[in-house]
Amino acid sequence: MTTTIDDQEILLETGAMDWQQMGEGVGIKVLRVSEETGQWTALIRMAAGSTFAAHKHLGAADGMVLEGCLEYRVGTAPAGSYLFEPLGAVHEATTCSTDTLLYFNVYGPIAFHDDAGEVTQILTHETALAMQQGSKEHFTADRSKPAA
Amino acid sequence: MTTTIDDQEILLETGAMDWQQMGEGVGIKVLRVSEETGQWTALIRMAAGSTFAAHKHLGAADGMVLEGCLEYRVGTAPAGSYLFEPLGAVHEATTCSTDTLLYFNVYGPIAFHDDAGEVTQILTHETALAMQQGSKEHFTADRSKPAA
Amino acid sequence: MTTTIDDQEILLETGAMDWQQMGEGVGIKVLRVSEETGQWTALIRMAAGSTFAAHKHLGAADGMVLEGCLEYRVGTAPAGSYLFEPLGAVHEATTCSTDTLLYFNVYGPIAFHDDAGEVTQILTHETALAMQQGSKEHFTADRSKPAA
Amino acid sequence: MTTTIDDQEILLETGAMDWQQMGEGVGIKVLRVSEETGQWTALIRMAAGSTFAAHKHLGAADGMVLEGCLEYRVGTAPAGSYLFEPLGAVHEATTCSTDTLLYFNVYGPIAFHDDAGEVTQILTHETALAMQQGSKEHFTADRSKPAA
Repeated sequence: MTTTIDDQEILLETGAMDWQQMGEGVGIKVLRVSEETGQWTALIRMAAGSTFAAHKHLGAADGMVLEGCLEYRVGTAPAGSYLFEPLGAVHEATTCSTDTLLYFNVYGPIAFHDDAGEVTQILTHETALAMQQGSKEHFTADRSKPAA
Repeated sequence: MTTTIDDQEILLETGAMDWQQMGEGVGIKVLRVSEETGQWTALIRMAAGSTFAAHKHLGAADGMVLEGCLEYRVGTAPAGSYLFEPLGAVHEATTCSTDTLLYFNVYGPIAFHDDAGEVTQILTHETALAMQQGSKEHFTADRSKPAA
Repeated sequence: MTTTIDDQEILLETGAMDWQQMGEGVGIKVLRVSEETGQWTALIRMAAGSTFAAHKHLGAADGMVLEGCLEYRVGTAPAGSYLFEPLGAVHEATTCSTDTLLYFNVYGPIAFHDDAGEVTQILTHETALAMQQGSKEHFTADRSKPAA
Repeated sequence: MTTTIDDQEILLETGAMDWQQMGEGVGIKVLRVSEETGQWTALIRMAAGSTFAAHKHLGAADGMVLEGCLEYRVGTAPAGSYLFEPLGAVHEATTCSTDTLLYFNVYGPIAFHDDAGEVTQILTHETALAMQQGSKEHFTADRSKPAA
């Protein structure tokens, strides 16, 4: 499934990888995580009706909608759409009315917050690493605490 | 076709964009170029039988094969493959035996060289900017010369 | 004091800039903030006996000790020391027993936490921007809340 | 001289390091090179009367003048000056009329060119790595050729 040449070169057949559950109706395949810069790359699939919670970008993100359609603050993004979400962008909940597949590069932490604007958790490269390794506990680490 | 919100937010319907010719049988749609970091993002299509010349990565690149199949030094990458090409990677000519569509992020210059190993041109973010603007002369600037 | 040529070129005489108070005995001159990548650069001075609170790096940082001496988890860093603090590093409180001057590049957010490991605030590029503009309120924004 | 904790943490006493010759009257101590991003950090000293050849930045650079004075296209930068040199900047020869010490972060390749604008060599992170290792041949590799 994975061929690594010259130490750093990566070729992944993503179809052969398992989906990790990221949230209700949201699955993820983490393709690469840089432990140096924190940048990570993933395929994300959202089932019709699923939601990606309100969040703020503490780093930019960009990617393509490969299948389905994403509805978010900027507009409606059908398959074939390219998205760039800048550092500092605050996005209300993102929804899909149809099954949707996304390819994304994420360049920094993403902070999720509740309706009162209080941060509830921070998705960092460490979360991405844990999801890459298939850990069940991957998405419960709150607010980037140092290890106990 | 393009919606920009909050100055920096980007949503592009790539299907509505025109292909620029990058080489014999190779077309490109440049989706974003950072004039600060030099990072750029593009869709690249290669007709069956076309070739991407031998090159060296002066910055990393990553992306997905969306359609077709890419044949390069690391192996055969069918649709659904994720590729990471590290800084410093030297790639012999890349070919396709079928029509192929790629989505790529490029993090630094790419130096093309002839059989003798002599650099013939450097593809920089300035080349990407010119291709984004549809210039006919985009790919003739050699070796990142300062403007005359 | 500032000369900007060709839009982006920067030359600052830092001696002519005012110190902003960052904390008890800690002053800062923010030299540049990238609103695209979140990277920022600053001179930081710490009075003898002052402390930089326990924190976790959500991005790497590097720099030089220009005067004095920094005492932190890795060791004692006198003037002339180069420091690289990787993404994910958790640093206990950093102290100085003599007046100390640092030049730093910061590549991502820094999360401060209390003794229980609870995050109390996140220093982001927005904090750096506010400090650059001399705002009195710069360092009170907690946990990167979206604007009310 | 060097203490590395937790694999990635770096603390260097730069005063104990040897200068490498980079050019006539120009010495360098390379402090860190990222083999992932190509970013590198160095102290550079220029003897009075020495010159840094005309070049184009294929990545940005920033730093401080720690001692002496730098004269370049943007202006005169005495000790205490902060400089940011953006991606794409073309700099005519930089000179010093007094002994000068610089601390710099370099974010991409630097292309040197002759009076006719022809590129004569490209300083990449590989050049920086070679200089870090003290190689005598460090600065002769031209135009980022692939290894023979």
